[in-house]
Amino acid sequence: MAKKRTSKYKKHVGKSPGTLTYTGYKDSQKLFIESFDYSSDFINEQELQNIEDAFQYKSTDSVTWININGLNHINEIEKIGTHYNLHPLVLEDIVNISQRPKIDEYEDYIFVSLKMLYYDADENITIEQVSFVLGKNYVLTFQESEGDVFDTVRERLRGGKGRIRTLGSDYLLYALMDAVVDHYYIVSETMGNKVEDLEDILFSGNVKDDLSQQVLSLKKELLKVRRSIFPLREIISRIQKSDSDLILKKNLQFYNDVYDHIIQLSDSIDIFREMIWSLMDMYMTTISNKMNEVMKVLTIIATIFIPLTFIAGVYGMNFDNIPELHYKNSYFILWGVMFLIFIAMLYYFKRKKWL
Amino acid sequence: MAKKRTSKYKKHVGKSPGTLTYTGYKDSQKLFIESFDYSSDFINEQELQNIEDAFQYKSTDSVTWININGLNHINEIEKIGTHYNLHPLVLEDIVNISQRPKIDEYEDYIFVSLKMLYYDADENITIEQVSFVLGKNYVLTFQESEGDVFDTVRERLRGGKGRIRTLGSDYLLYALMDAVVDHYYIVSETMGNKVEDLEDILFSGNVKDDLSQQVLSLKKELLKVRRSIFPLREIISRIQKSDSDLILKKNLQFYNDVYDHIIQLSDSIDIFREMIWSLMDMYMTTISNKMNEVMKVLTIIATIFIPLTFIAGVYGMNFDNIPELHYKNSYFILWGVMFLIFIAMLYYFKRKKWL
Amino acid sequence: MAKKRTSKYKKHVGKSPGTLTYTGYKDSQKLFIESFDYSSDFINEQELQNIEDAFQYKSTDSVTWININGLNHINEIEKIGTHYNLHPLVLEDIVNISQRPKIDEYEDYIFVSLKMLYYDADENITIEQVSFVLGKNYVLTFQESEGDVFDTVRERLRGGKGRIRTLGSDYLLYALMDAVVDHYYIVSETMGNKVEDLEDILFSGNVKDDLSQQVLSLKKELLKVRRSIFPLREIISRIQKSDSDLILKKNLQFYNDVYDHIIQLSDSIDIFREMIWSLMDMYMTTISNKMNEVMKVLTIIATIFIPLTFIAGVYGMNFDNIPELHYKNSYFILWGVMFLIFIAMLYYFKRKKWL
Amino acid sequence: MAKKRTSKYKKHVGKSPGTLTYTGYKDSQKLFIESFDYSSDFINEQELQNIEDAFQYKSTDSVTWININGLNHINEIEKIGTHYNLHPLVLEDIVNISQRPKIDEYEDYIFVSLKMLYYDADENITIEQVSFVLGKNYVLTFQESEGDVFDTVRERLRGGKGRIRTLGSDYLLYALMDAVVDHYYIVSETMGNKVEDLEDILFSGNVKDDLSQQVLSLKKELLKVRRSIFPLREIISRIQKSDSDLILKKNLQFYNDVYDHIIQLSDSIDIFREMIWSLMDMYMTTISNKMNEVMKVLTIIATIFIPLTFIAGVYGMNFDNIPELHYKNSYFILWGVMFLIFIAMLYYFKRKKWL
Amino acid sequence: MAKKRTSKYKKHVGKSPGTLTYTGYKDSQKLFIESFDYSSDFINEQELQNIEDAFQYKSTDSVTWININGLNHINEIEKIGTHYNLHPLVLEDIVNISQRPKIDEYEDYIFVSLKMLYYDADENITIEQVSFVLGKNYVLTFQESEGDVFDTVRERLRGGKGRIRTLGSDYLLYALMDAVVDHYYIVSETMGNKVEDLEDILFSGNVKDDLSQQVLSLKKELLKVRRSIFPLREIISRIQKSDSDLILKKNLQFYNDVYDHIIQLSDSIDIFREMIWSLMDMYMTTISNKMNEVMKVLTIIATIFIPLTFIAGVYGMNFDNIPELHYKNSYFILWGVMFLIFIAMLYYFKRKKWL
Repeated sequence: MAKKRTSKYKKHVGKSPGTLTYTGYKDSQKLFIESFDYSSDFINEQELQNIEDAFQYKSTDSVTWININGLNHINEIEKIGTHYNLHPLVLEDIVNISQRPKIDEYEDYIFVSLKMLYYDADENITIEQVSFVLGKNYVLTFQESEGDVFDTVRERLRGGKGRIRTLGSDYLLYALMDAVVDHYYIVSETMGNKVEDLEDILFSGNVKDDLSQQVLSLKKELLKVRRSIFPLREIISRIQKSDSDLILKKNLQFYNDVYDHIIQLSDSIDIFREMIWSLMDMYMTTISNKMNEVMKVLTIIATIFIPLTFIAGVYGMNFDNIPELHYKNSYFILWGVMFLIFIAMLYYFKRKKWL
Repeated sequence: MAKKRTSKYKKHVGKSPGTLTYTGYKDSQKLFIESFDYSSDFINEQELQNIEDAFQYKSTDSVTWININGLNHINEIEKIGTHYNLHPLVLEDIVNISQRPKIDEYEDYIFVSLKMLYYDADENITIEQVSFVLGKNYVLTFQESEGDVFDTVRERLRGGKGRIRTLGSDYLLYALMDAVVDHYYIVSETMGNKVEDLEDILFSGNVKDDLSQQVLSLKKELLKVRRSIFPLREIISRIQKSDSDLILKKNLQFYNDVYDHIIQLSDSIDIFREMIWSLMDMYMTTISNKMNEVMKVLTIIATIFIPLTFIAGVYGMNFDNIPELHYKNSYFILWGVMFLIFIAMLYYFKRKKWL
Repeated sequence: MAKKRTSKYKKHVGKSPGTLTYTGYKDSQKLFIESFDYSSDFINEQELQNIEDAFQYKSTDSVTWININGLNHINEIEKIGTHYNLHPLVLEDIVNISQRPKIDEYEDYIFVSLKMLYYDADENITIEQVSFVLGKNYVLTFQESEGDVFDTVRERLRGGKGRIRTLGSDYLLYALMDAVVDHYYIVSETMGNKVEDLEDILFSGNVKDDLSQQVLSLKKELLKVRRSIFPLREIISRIQKSDSDLILKKNLQFYNDVYDHIIQLSDSIDIFREMIWSLMDMYMTTISNKMNEVMKVLTIIATIFIPLTFIAGVYGMNFDNIPELHYKNSYFILWGVMFLIFIAMLYYFKRKKWL
Repeated sequence: MAKKRTSKYKKHVGKSPGTLTYTGYKDSQKLFIESFDYSSDFINEQELQNIEDAFQYKSTDSVTWININGLNHINEIEKIGTHYNLHPLVLEDIVNISQRPKIDEYEDYIFVSLKMLYYDADENITIEQVSFVLGKNYVLTFQESEGDVFDTVRERLRGGKGRIRTLGSDYLLYALMDAVVDHYYIVSETMGNKVEDLEDILFSGNVKDDLSQQVLSLKKELLKVRRSIFPLREIISRIQKSDSDLILKKNLQFYNDVYDHIIQLSDSIDIFREMIWSLMDMYMTTISNKMNEVMKVLTIIATIFIPLTFIAGVYGMNFDNIPELHYKNSYFILWGVMFLIFIAMLYYFKRKKWL
Repeated sequence: MAKKRTSKYKKHVGKSPGTLTYTGYKDSQKLFIESFDYSSDFINEQELQNIEDAFQYKSTDSVTWININGLNHINEIEKIGTHYNLHPLVLEDIVNISQRPKIDEYEDYIFVSLKMLYYDADENITIEQVSFVLGKNYVLTFQESEGDVFDTVRERLRGGKGRIRTLGSDYLLYALMDAVVDHYYIVSETMGNKVEDLEDILFSGNVKDDLSQQVLSLKKELLKVRRSIFPLREIISRIQKSDSDLILKKNLQFYNDVYDHIIQLSDSIDIFREMIWSLMDMYMTTISNKMNEVMKVLTIIATIFIPLTFIAGVYGMNFDNIPELHYKNSYFILWGVMFLIFIAMLYYFKRKKWL
């Protein structure tokens, strides 16, 4: 019954820790690098052709966001890692896409790994890992493939409106993380709608037999989302308590805001969870109620007609001497008797509230 | 099966953090501003026509309560926010009505966001957000629309009885929060009554098939209330531990009192929750008991009459040579035999305690 | 379906905090005040006629216990509160009998509010609130009505045996609280017996349909008791950690003892809780087992006789040409065949372990 | 339905705290006192006739273990308590056998109360309380009756092998507690076996109706064991963190070892608990599966023969004009038709996977 | 019903603590000792013939890994323990294979005990204990038998690539523990697959009656894995917080990495757990749905044919005077009537959505 599966762990096992192994399935992804170099009075947006073009931004005064797509390009990632002094374990975490969301603080930079969540065209949840490296004047982001939730940040950078160009790299990190969290709300809302749809189906009574499958699928989805979102509580609170110079005190309020959002999302997810358990319960009572109804119909029909059939059977017997058979009106009297039994039965069921 | 829904998150996503977006549905609400300016020896109650009229109270010595209704009036809220030096994120929280209850302490003021709960005409729970800004000599409150739970505070302010006019703005904040919490008790009591009603229905035996729907609805309601009330525990304890000058030590006892109330409410809600789960359990056993009873009726009738019908069938056969058919009394003897079988069956069911 | 209920909260809502409102139902209770003034060498027990008679003990050197019954006498309680410098919120808590057990430490006194539990004549749990005020040389107790669990303390005071007259007011408070907790044991034991009775009923098999109601009632009772007892853990541990001068270090060991008792009671209650859940589970399997048995009887009878009835029906048909009908012994042969079918069926059920 | 029970609490209620009341049922136990006085080079084992003989060891340099059996001998226990300066509450705890496991540190001694667990001849769990008093050079143990788990300690003392005679009284306490905990393993293992036996029964399919009773009994047993073992985690960790001179730092490692054992036992018990819940679940599905099978047999038989019986009934009617009755082969054709119906039905059930 | 079991505890009970007793079943295991002595520029791999050959490495400057297989060789283990100054309790833990994973820090060395997990040929989980002793320049490992998860570490040591030969003994310990944890991933993945297989079976509808057994087995397996993995969280965090000189600060980052892996594994296991509970729920609804379907078939057949059989029975009665019998077309009319009843029934079931 078991399917053939390829294990994504087996190939990794036994490699030296710190050996880069891309654990995802998008092996033919093109490398795509874009950079935003900006300060309050200029912005320079570029698509970089070589990973080496990204080296120059390490020590400029302007803030730079370098966004690298294509985790299958192990070599390029190793190069930029070496240039930006990233710890081998950080690089390993970047390319290991089954990484749990985490934060690691190093002397020169802070490493954060999150999950982007969005629904694909078929309404399935897609989880994509995105890693952030926050340095003095730069933020590096690493993604499996092009296409992300950061378009709104790009717009704001280009437009130069709001605070984004005047505050430093820690605000940029905040803005990017906030964009990720904003999309969690959409996912959470969609899940809430799915829960309510299931509820509506149960309330309407048009229940199909596969409802328990739907409930189970939804529960799995919820567990996946939960696992992506819950670790953020700790991550953000680690940022809040961090004594790193990279996070300015004056920008902490923004992280408090993200923290509040995460708590709110966690609340919602726990409520969905409880609702789903309740739905399963309610589904069980619905089935039981239906069975009860089926049973009642059977019992009513059988209880009425089995005795009547018995009576008919009695007078179908071939004994020589059955006096009733020969009276003139006994047939009609019997109909009357059977009708009375029928009425009595109905009355009995009425009183039992089965009708 | 899914309904069309408008997402309240999608429109917000991508805006710069700190951009004011009213997330509620009451878009045509009139702006209504009232002010209570008072000290122990005078009170001045006014309806303000322009938001600018509220600016003057920022630095007066008398205590002022400015109550602003109509969160859809983004501009006015931005103006007063700017005048009272409110952080952009605070303003964002004020107009985002799906905000989780929270507290944020700033240098000059404390921001608290709560949920007012009340039952509307149809006995549905209504949740309305109310935000408080406690400053040196003022309290600002922000609500979506007119109509709130503060009438008793207004009365006490006007009457000048009790402590309310002699104690400062932190006592006013307490009085307002206490009024919110007082209404939680009514909600909690109503929910307790609903739980007991369901219990009575179950105990009476007059159970309708939609009981599980009612239980589920009640559970959802409970979860909503829980989500509104539980965060207050942390909010109040943050106030208690706050070292802000805005909360006077001598008034802390009052906040302890609110804290006790919240703990008591939390206890009650957890008990309701447990009761509801038990009700669902009991409902399941009720259904099973009923099914059992239906089955018994069917089984008794069928078990008695099926063998008798068989006997009648035997003597309805047309074999040429069935000696019993020709004895004079065999018909009557058969009746006797069938009666004995009937009695034996009844005795069997009696012993099985089915009758 | 909803009953008419009077809300005990609605009338309270909106009153100024600190306004005394008795929230119980014993509105016509007589005021009864008794005092025990004692030191190691004398004791003076009195029934006081006026609340003013209790004022003198505030600053005497001897230890005094003043026991006030009748919380509906708001005025008298306010008077003594004023004389003994009680905070308005303390007085409010004294007369609000739906108060959760709590402790509040003030500069001059410690306020403790507990629940006395006992079974009334009908074996229903009765909860009565008792409030303690521990001062330098006095303990005030406030109860709704006469009749309490303190008779053993009175005896010991009168007898002068043991430590009670030589140790101070903090030991008196301990002795009173210990008397309350001692009664919890009786309640806990009675509940344990009830759980075991239900268990015996389930084990005996004589289950009535209303068992789930009994289980639910017991669970509600348990929740009530739990809510009364659990907060004591925190209350006692607050006393243990208190740095108030009112609690002498040398008497702390006694409070440790009460703490141990409370922990033990909490354990027991949690075990009862788990047992009750298990009972409900077991009840469900009992019902299912019974249903299974009913089904088997039905199935055995129907499976045996329906085929036989069919055979009898066949030879009751009126076709002109049914050769079997005319053989001499075919009737007797048929009986043999039917008997064989009967035996085969029995064997089948035996093998299926249905018999 | 309720049995007559004697309450062990009622008689205790109202006594002055510190009054010795033996709460067990072994009221006619003989007093038995044994002493082991030893140092690295000698051992003196004695049965003491009078409690006064035990007084001399209080201040000798050699280590002494005094083991007192017979908690009903209140007077003797009071005497030794007075001589060894034990706090009245400690004595009360020693004779109150429903005491929860606990530790109390006093200036001169440490008091520990544990539960010994063992299976009696009928495989029922027996719980006996044992109290330890660790002093400078002595350990006192108090038990309800003779017979305990300490024989291995006695052997080691007599043999003088290992460390036991060279390390002090704190090591003796450890050795005694370790003996108690060693027996927990046997109990835990027996319970594990019981869980597995139930599992085997369920897997084999030979389920009796009283299985849920067995599961419930096992769960009760588990709760009792749990209540005896779990408090030890806190007790041992209190010893580990104690700054008392009575526990030497160099012997702490031994207590760490006991702590590890307790954690391991707690783990096992929690796993048994979860297994038992799962067993109950599995039992429910087993019953449901059986019911399903019974239903299928009934449905198959009824569905096949009811229509056939109907057909036979039709041709048993006495209408004057039923043409089919008079054709020569109609009886045989009808048998063919009925056989076809029979086959069609079987095919239908086959496709439904009921056969 | 209970099987004969040999208790692995009974034989241990009563032995002096610190007495070495091998508690496993592999009593005839050969002793196998291998050593890797290395620094950055050389490596010396050897199979040692005598335990005494391992003594020399205690104080060399090069790092040495000594791997000892065969815990039944108590004497040899005692010898090396004495030479390397191991505490008697450590040696006891090494040979007690039912030891819970633990860490103990001593002055000269750190002792860690873990569980290796792997699936054997029959896809059953095998748990083998491995103990580590980390000293200044050596790591000792103790296993029950040859065959382990460390081949990848051996390869890296031999190859000399990566950091492993340049970093000290604490890095070696990390590399070994990391190899153990890497295999946990394979186990976790296999369990995930098993959960999904069960899910697929449930979704496909091809459910066998023994599914609940499979679910229960899987749950047991999960509990075993959980018990092996969960304690590691504490062990690693104890290493992280350790102030021992044996763990260099610069290598701590590697332990952080292992910690992250353990947290991720714990998450996965908790999710599997929840999924399994949900599967059991879904299985119950599947059974109920099937039962419902069986009931419907029975009810439809019985409800249609029982009334029709009654009618046929009526006209099979032998009354002298049944007028309908003598009309010419009454037989055909009756067929029409019965057909109408049949159609009406079908329509009724259609409307009830049973067809």
